Amino acid sequence: MQAEKQSMFESAELGHKIDKKTYKEQVPALREALLDAQFDLAQAGNFPVIILIGGVDGAGKGETANLLNEWMDPRHIHTQAFGALSDEESERPLMWRFWRALPPKGKVGIYFGSWYTEPIVKRAYGETDKETLSYSLEEIVRFEKMLTDEGALILKFWFHLSKEKQKERIHSLEDNPKTRWRVTEIDKRHLKLYDKFREISEHVLRDTSTAEAPWIIVEGFDANYRNLTVGKQVLQAMRKRLEQHDGRPLASAAPPLMTPVDNLQLINTLDLSLKLDKTIYERKLEKYQGRLNILTRDPKFKDISVIIVFEGLDAAGKGGSIRRITHAIDARMFSITPIAAPTEEERAQPYLWRFWRHIPRRGRLAIFDRSWYGRVLVERVEGLCSEYDWMRAYSEINDFEEQQARNDIVLVKFWLQISKEEQLRRFEERQQISFKRFKITDEDWRNREKWDDYQAAVSDMIDRTSTLHAPWTVVEAEDKNFARIKILKTLCERIEQAVAD
Amino acid sequence: MQAEKQSMFESAELGHKIDKKTYKEQVPALREALLDAQFDLAQAGNFPVIILIGGVDGAGKGETANLLNEWMDPRHIHTQAFGALSDEESERPLMWRFWRALPPKGKVGIYFGSWYTEPIVKRAYGETDKETLSYSLEEIVRFEKMLTDEGALILKFWFHLSKEKQKERIHSLEDNPKTRWRVTEIDKRHLKLYDKFREISEHVLRDTSTAEAPWIIVEGFDANYRNLTVGKQVLQAMRKRLEQHDGRPLASAAPPLMTPVDNLQLINTLDLSLKLDKTIYERKLEKYQGRLNILTRDPKFKDISVIIVFEGLDAAGKGGSIRRITHAIDARMFSITPIAAPTEEERAQPYLWRFWRHIPRRGRLAIFDRSWYGRVLVERVEGLCSEYDWMRAYSEINDFEEQQARNDIVLVKFWLQISKEEQLRRFEERQQISFKRFKITDEDWRNREKWDDYQAAVSDMIDRTSTLHAPWTVVEAEDKNFARIKILKTLCERIEQAVAD
Repeated sequence: MQAEKQSMFESAELGHKIDKKTYKEQVPALREALLDAQFDLAQAGNFPVIILIGGVDGAGKGETANLLNEWMDPRHIHTQAFGALSDEESERPLMWRFWRALPPKGKVGIYFGSWYTEPIVKRAYGETDKETLSYSLEEIVRFEKMLTDEGALILKFWFHLSKEKQKERIHSLEDNPKTRWRVTEIDKRHLKLYDKFREISEHVLRDTSTAEAPWIIVEGFDANYRNLTVGKQVLQAMRKRLEQHDGRPLASAAPPLMTPVDNLQLINTLDLSLKLDKTIYERKLEKYQGRLNILTRDPKFKDISVIIVFEGLDAAGKGGSIRRITHAIDARMFSITPIAAPTEEERAQPYLWRFWRHIPRRGRLAIFDRSWYGRVLVERVEGLCSEYDWMRAYSEINDFEEQQARNDIVLVKFWLQISKEEQLRRFEERQQISFKRFKITDEDWRNREKWDDYQAAVSDMIDRTSTLHAPWTVVEAEDKNFARIKILKTLCERIEQAVAD
Repeated sequence: MQAEKQSMFESAELGHKIDKKTYKEQVPALREALLDAQFDLAQAGNFPVIILIGGVDGAGKGETANLLNEWMDPRHIHTQAFGALSDEESERPLMWRFWRALPPKGKVGIYFGSWYTEPIVKRAYGETDKETLSYSLEEIVRFEKMLTDEGALILKFWFHLSKEKQKERIHSLEDNPKTRWRVTEIDKRHLKLYDKFREISEHVLRDTSTAEAPWIIVEGFDANYRNLTVGKQVLQAMRKRLEQHDGRPLASAAPPLMTPVDNLQLINTLDLSLKLDKTIYERKLEKYQGRLNILTRDPKFKDISVIIVFEGLDAAGKGGSIRRITHAIDARMFSITPIAAPTEEERAQPYLWRFWRHIPRRGRLAIFDRSWYGRVLVERVEGLCSEYDWMRAYSEINDFEEQQARNDIVLVKFWLQISKEEQLRRFEERQQISFKRFKITDEDWRNREKWDDYQAAVSDMIDRTSTLHAPWTVVEAEDKNFARIKILKTLCERIEQAVAD
């Protein structure tokens, strides 16, 4: 006799049911309470609610999205369905469409179809193997962890039907002329693959049910049961979060990052005496600018995009280096995003959101003058975010950059290193000249006082985010000529490699 | 002997030239001054600079965009080229792509290709007639007037070459292997149509050279002349605007709007006693919600989109009416935008920008809970903008809505009218109930004191913005049942008409 295998779906095949009378009694108070919770959420405005709706066809996914819009105030709900990719979406990493649809703090976002859809469907149709699926799931877990760490409340509903009930449901939808339109060819095809989908879904749900964002499996056959379950679950989760004085996670449990006991850090080993004299510089500048220009006109350049990140302390020469690049490129092909304080709309989102929105389309270059590394540099050193927040940023950033690499984005990251003395010299030089735009502010001087803290942060950053896909190029920037040529050369080589692939 | 016809291009065919020495002498100071002006612009942050680049092929359009990026700080310039439409763009009114690319206050936007490209090219290829062109130009003039009224500095450069010089230029580009790539088949085709393009361009430039945004025609053959001209022109215009203490236009010269001397206004003639009893209401509600649901699933619905605007005083019943609509529609098809105070990013743009960004794609409905009419209602009554600003808003809104109609957007606008007594009754009723979200605030009571001012503003609004394409539906909202059915019925009829077309 074969041992009976327990399934996580069994509890959702018990034939849950709520009778009409009980339902009618309970709904009015539930709706009121939901509206109240939604009002409090909008007032507090300190976290978003993200509701994912997934599951078996015919189990009430669409009805649930509609129900929540009916029971709550639809003016503060963003319902998003993710169908075919638009061309603006297909030219960017897959997650871009989900990032752009994230609800801001204080609002509810309903995701109908989500980052789970593609991994499950592709695996069910045999387009991907087990390892690819596992890899996707790991990424998803980290992504959701990031969202909850940023304060989001994530509710993941999975609507389940047993095979028999699914058949029954689809046939009854088909029999009714009013609902027949809702049964698509895809539904029928999926029904044939029921067992396959069930097996994969179970695997997916198990691997992605985390402490922060557990799956909630709901038997989908009886609408009353389904509706009450979803409504109460949403209510309870929102109430619990609203009652927490501060939704932020606990302090970091990570051991403190320590500078090497011999104080030997990569950035201290650089040879800052490297120089290029003017004649050689001008010859090389022309050479590499010409090469860069030709590369951006390579027919294969249309299939890739380039992101260039500049980081470096004040007066390290970021602006001048950027101009040496842009002079070589047609102005219609690049955009530059200088990173200053986030706007109100950006503050209402996870910190990476403001960078995702500037991911370039194919055939374009996006230059960041300072970047997402602010979190592990200035925000860390100045105490603008908690240790927990900047500690988790290293892996969040690595995930972000890996997604870029996978989408044929060439990411080139430069750290411009100068000595403390050279910075002082440049500060003083700037104070002599009259151009307002080069004025040294009190803040610049204050940052300088924290030189050692910044150096430690930079070392950690380079150690923890120099990956195969997105290595850092540390630039000896004491001599501007040397730095600019090294930057142009590196950039050319990276693009050459990409168009040769 | 034929009389010689003077052309506006003649001054740009004189063979303007700047010798190398003069150029080299003048450029450094000019660049410094431009950088200074750009810095002051960023500091002031109270207007954007929009630079349009148009003209004859081979006259230096691309070079000029690059030059400005080279001479100024490219980090604060957004250079935009407008090529083929993306699918997200092609599903919306033509101007959407330009709106989304507008530079915020404090920045410079370079438009390479602009709202002039399509009208000129289509006319040159004979795809449109003279009248269509004229109509487009009138729209453009009003659009640019709106931008300048909103504070924008617009510089429109037209680069010109005589026919002989254009041939010469294109041949010399072709002869050089390094520049051959820049000559496209389109350029050659345009050369053949030189005379046609010249004639049409002259017409376009003449009709769109306004006091606020005149064309600047630049002979494009000599790069030194061209560069110095553009650089100095940009500098002077920015300096002039920066030195004006307040860039806003003068007070409105319009005669004051007067209420009819007999005090008879449309909204006072409404029969507010209209009612529906509960049984009839419920029957009709079911009927129209069903009809609406079927309409949104009509195959032709995929080719249109719907915008629904709700306006009405506090407690007029907007929220309840919206819910009666959304209950009938799949949540994945609609979005609701409640209009509250604009965000920081929205405040850095013309006032219509925040509505343009919510224009729906095909097959979708966008519902606005309050709308762009805020400018002629609350902003007018509360003195939040100048008389000049709200006076010009009527025609700006009409233009906006006409563009929607032309793009197969069904725009349905509801004004919900209640009596002063009924508002008081609803306010008092709300004070009795415990739901926080219905709390009447001091502001609500204050607004109520200005009842007559609001009624006058509403009357003017309806008179001035009820157009053939976008008529107002004034709803007798004293009885909620009556109002909701009238709204649903009107909406159904408008969509029916659109899918039948």
